[in-house]
This record gives sequence, structure tokens and C-alpha cells, in this order.
Amino acid sequence: MADDGDYKRDQNYITTRITADGRDGYPVEPGRYRLVIARACPWANRAAIVRRLLGLEDVLSMGIAGPVHDERSWTFDLDPGGKDPVLGIERLQEAFFKRDPEYPRGITVPAIVDIPTGQVVTNDFNQITIDMSGEWAKYHRPGAPALYPEHLRDEIDEVNAKVFADVNNGVYRCGFASTQEAYEAAYERLFARLDWLSDRLANQRYLVGDTITEADIRLFTTLARFDAVYHGHFKCNRQKLAEMPVLWAYVRDLFQTPGFGDTIHFPQIKEHYYVVHRTINPTGIVPVGPDESGWLTPHGREELGGKPFGDGTPPGPPLDAERVPSPA
Amino acid sequence: MADDGDYKRDQNYITTRITADGRDGYPVEPGRYRLVIARACPWANRAAIVRRLLGLEDVLSMGIAGPVHDERSWTFDLDPGGKDPVLGIERLQEAFFKRDPEYPRGITVPAIVDIPTGQVVTNDFNQITIDMSGEWAKYHRPGAPALYPEHLRDEIDEVNAKVFADVNNGVYRCGFASTQEAYEAAYERLFARLDWLSDRLANQRYLVGDTITEADIRLFTTLARFDAVYHGHFKCNRQKLAEMPVLWAYVRDLFQTPGFGDTIHFPQIKEHYYVVHRTINPTGIVPVGPDESGWLTPHGREELGGKPFGDGTPPGPPLDAERVPSPA
Repeated sequence: MADDGDYKRDQNYITTRITADGRDGYPVEPGRYRLVIARACPWANRAAIVRRLLGLEDVLSMGIAGPVHDERSWTFDLDPGGKDPVLGIERLQEAFFKRDPEYPRGITVPAIVDIPTGQVVTNDFNQITIDMSGEWAKYHRPGAPALYPEHLRDEIDEVNAKVFADVNNGVYRCGFASTQEAYEAAYERLFARLDWLSDRLANQRYLVGDTITEADIRLFTTLARFDAVYHGHFKCNRQKLAEMPVLWAYVRDLFQTPGFGDTIHFPQIKEHYYVVHRTINPTGIVPVGPDESGWLTPHGREELGGKPFGDGTPPGPPLDAERVPSPA
Repeated sequence: MADDGDYKRDQNYITTRITADGRDGYPVEPGRYRLVIARACPWANRAAIVRRLLGLEDVLSMGIAGPVHDERSWTFDLDPGGKDPVLGIERLQEAFFKRDPEYPRGITVPAIVDIPTGQVVTNDFNQITIDMSGEWAKYHRPGAPALYPEHLRDEIDEVNAKVFADVNNGVYRCGFASTQEAYEAAYERLFARLDWLSDRLANQRYLVGDTITEADIRLFTTLARFDAVYHGHFKCNRQKLAEMPVLWAYVRDLFQTPGFGDTIHFPQIKEHYYVVHRTINPTGIVPVGPDESGWLTPHGREELGGKPFGDGTPPGPPLDAERVPSPA
């Protein structure tokens, strides 16, 4: 926390890249890497969605950390014996320390681990999904969508910058503000941006162009958690998302699109935030609500036109090992 | 807190009564007593509403403690010089100690203080409103409604008992549960009872009979605080009240009835809960939301028939000194 009560996110990550030409020493290679996520985490959720949409499941395996962690961060407590079955480690921290025994910053997901050495290659979540689209193109499934097409990049980047500052990170700035003033400033920015997004999406199905892009994925992972966590836990409570008609229809449209809702695990999302953040929820008690039954109701957004996957096709079903429960 | 994690309300109050015949030593007498409330408190809110509906403002004055208190409880920090202008005290505690220097229990509102001696007569909130209806009858305004009519008492008492256990106190049992199990049990009871109330109120305008009674007043003061406080702060979050159509229309109908909404001070309500309960909101940061603009929208409940005040009339406007801000 800074002196002004503002929450400041540490945005220093390991920026090594896995590329087609291997210029950082890590060439794209099927079976060599493991993406580590937690179902709870919105930043990791982006990578899980992009992997699904592009059909990278068979070339880039995925480890799933449990929702709850201590000050030493994410653990593989959901796996048999409490160890990731491929990496053989109990804590994601071990892979960061293999890369740098003095690693000084946060142990974050998503992270991509080089399986032969057990070292984290990168935890740079912004670059990870961009590289899945660009550098891993050779291994995309037939019919994979163009999530970051050249001719739309400037506009996608511009939207992403606004959404990151005011929404993705904005909800944390509400929840972790340490003064009333810092909270109120973050709240105003958040809802002003959500109003801007509502206007933008009132007559267009997706954020940029007429297909799903990176911009939609990045907004989705925050909106999917809004009513379950940010509304109450982070005091983002002008309305529930379910009370903002355009955004609520938009997020249900995406949720019901293969590759989105099938990555969302509401119980783990709630457990993570409410159990880990003892400074704002000392009891660790996890709310039973909200009622999730609205997520699968008709959204009517098809009428706006647009083609979710452009000239491509939806992904098939998720791997059996990666299935999540349906909304209750 | 009990060992099972259940929140147990101390229900021992000073049960001395102010009566027409003065049998407890405190006869009904214009100008002799002062009702002390806090705008934040749902139990005190009942007495403020009943005083308004019955037109007792001129015979029973009202002191208003501020929303925030410390372990020594309610203070008159809203008043000039931080003292109640009639009682001349800074803390309500002083009036309890005048009655009993060893007073061992909670300093609660509503309390009625005997102005000549400065002693609390009673803080028995259940009896206070019943006695305003019965014992103070001689001083009711012309057109005052019958809030606790003889022929409906059994039914009112029966509804009140259910509403108290599962709703009025039920929200506290959610918020102050110290185990996940105790919270979940309270949550299930609360929403089961709210569903029961929704069914009961779907085709009938008021809870008992076809006019406003004590039963409506007691339910109203909890429902009025539901979205502002209990939904997030106490984790009563299956839905917002604004998402439960029957109860949301019912509570707006009452809110828009003179004597109800004009006793509700949303900023003080939020400030009290979020600032005082540091064990569940350590930062003391008060949410900006929820948006209050819905409170004055049409509710459509007139179509169900019923006469709010029976053969009586609505009360006039509140005293200038007792006005509250309109919903933002």
C-alpha cells in the first residue's frame, strides 16, 4: 500500500518468452511446457480460456493449483498426494526458486513451467495469451479463431489498457484501498468505465470488431467474478452485474460460448478470495450466494450480429480432467 | 458467541413499563419522557416509525444518537456540543448508570429516559412500540391507525415471532456467525423465511389483515437495511432484496408511506455497521453503493387493495429537526 491508501499492483514479471524461433532459449515445442493456473484467479483464467479457444490442450498441458494459499502462495493441494502430477512439486514457489533461488517477487499464476528443468519460464500474464495466439500458431486446432488479429491490435490494446486500469485492476483498487478516499476514487473510476463499456456494447456484440478477441477475454474474467466476489468482498456495489442489463447479457453470452463458462469454477473463486484475504474478511467465512441460476438464461445478443469465432469454429468439449461444475 | 459458532443475542432488557395507570411508577405523561434512538438501528427504527404513525411527536420527544460508537456505546455526537439538548448527557450509558450504577448489560437503543431523573425507564424494544399503541392511546393524533388491534394480536404475534427469529435477528446470525456451518444454517433459515414472506405477500398488501400493523413495521426495518448492509456486510447474498420482486415492491410501498421512509437515513445506517463492526470489516471503509434511486419508483401494490391506515389517515410531515435526506 502506498501512503495515499491506493493499492499498487507489483507489475514486474519474468518476461522471458516462449517463441517459435526460440530466441529467449525457450522454443515452442509440444509437450515441453506446463501452464499452471488456479481456477480462482482472473489473470490465470485468461490463459485457460485462450488455450481452450485455440485448442492447445494437447500440446500445452495444464496444472491447477487449489483456491486457497498461505503467504508462500499457490499449492497443488487438489492433486493426489498434494503434488502436481507432471511437475512433482507441492508448491508453485518451487518452480520459481528453481529458476531463481532468490526470486524476490510474488508467486503468481498464470505461470508456464519448462517441464525438463522444472523452472518457471514466464509469469507475464499479458504476454502469455498474446504468445499463445502468435507464437503457438502452428499448433492451433483447425478452426481456431484469430484472437489478436493484426488489423485490430491498436484498438484491442487501447481497450485493454482502459479495462485493465479501471476494471481488471480497478476492482482490486476498490477492495484493497486502505483509506475511504482511495476506495471512493477507485469506485468512481470502476463504475464510470462499466458505464462506458455498457454504452459500447449496447449495439455491438463484442468489444472490438465483430468477433471474440483478447479484449473480450480480458473483460470477461473480471465480469465473471463480479457478483460472486467483487460486489460484496471488494465493495464494488453500485449495482450487481445482474442489474446492469447490457453487461449482464454480454457476460452471459460469453459464458455460454464454449471455452469461457467451462473454465469458471464459482466455488473455488469464492473460496479463494474470502479465505485468503483475511485482512478484509477476518472470519474466512465464504458466502453461500449469489444464486447462480441466471448464468445459463437466454441473453438475446445473437440479434446484434457478429460471429463469435469469425470464419472459425467453436472448440470441442474440455478434457475430462479439466471439467468444472455447472452453475448451481 | 456460543461454542457452536452461533450468534446469541442478549435478550435481557429493562422491562419497566410506562403505562396509563402508572403501576410501575412511570405514568404516561406528555413531555416527561424522551425516546432515544439511533437512525442506524433497526430496533430503534421501529419506535421512530410508531411514534410518527401515531403522532406522538409532541408528547414524547426524541433524541438521536450518532451512527458510530465505541465499546461504551451510543453517543450524542450529532448534537451541538456533543450533548443531547434535553438530557444534557454525552453518552446514553450515563442514563443507564443513573438507573443502575452497576448496569451490567448492553447499552441499547431504543431507550426511553425519564427526563426529571435522567434515568432510563426501559429499553425493552418489543414492549415499547406495543405500549405506544396501547398505553399512550389518549395522546394519539386524530386519525392514528390501530397498529396492534385486539382481534389481530394472535396472528401479529405469530408472524412477529417467525420474522424475529429468522429475519430481524436472522441477518445478525448470518453476519456474526463464527463458523461456516453456523453461517450456512442461518442463511438457509433467512432465505426460507423470505420466500415464505414473498408467498404470503404476493396477493395481500400487508402482512396481517388489510392495514399496516406492528408486523409490517418490524419486517420493514430489516428489509430497509437489506441491500445497504445485510447483503454484503452480513453475507445475506442469495439475492438482493431488489431482486426479489414481491418483497421489493412491498418494502417500497411502505417506504413511500408517510412515517416509514422519512425515518430512514441510509448514510447513517451504512456508517454504523461498516465502521462499528471491525471484526468483520477491519478497514472501516464504508461502501458507496448501493444505488438508492429505486426506492421512490412505483410499486404497484395499490392494486392489491388494503387501506394503509384503515379508517384513519396518514401522519403529517416530520418535525423539521427530525428530517432525513431523501434516497440519493
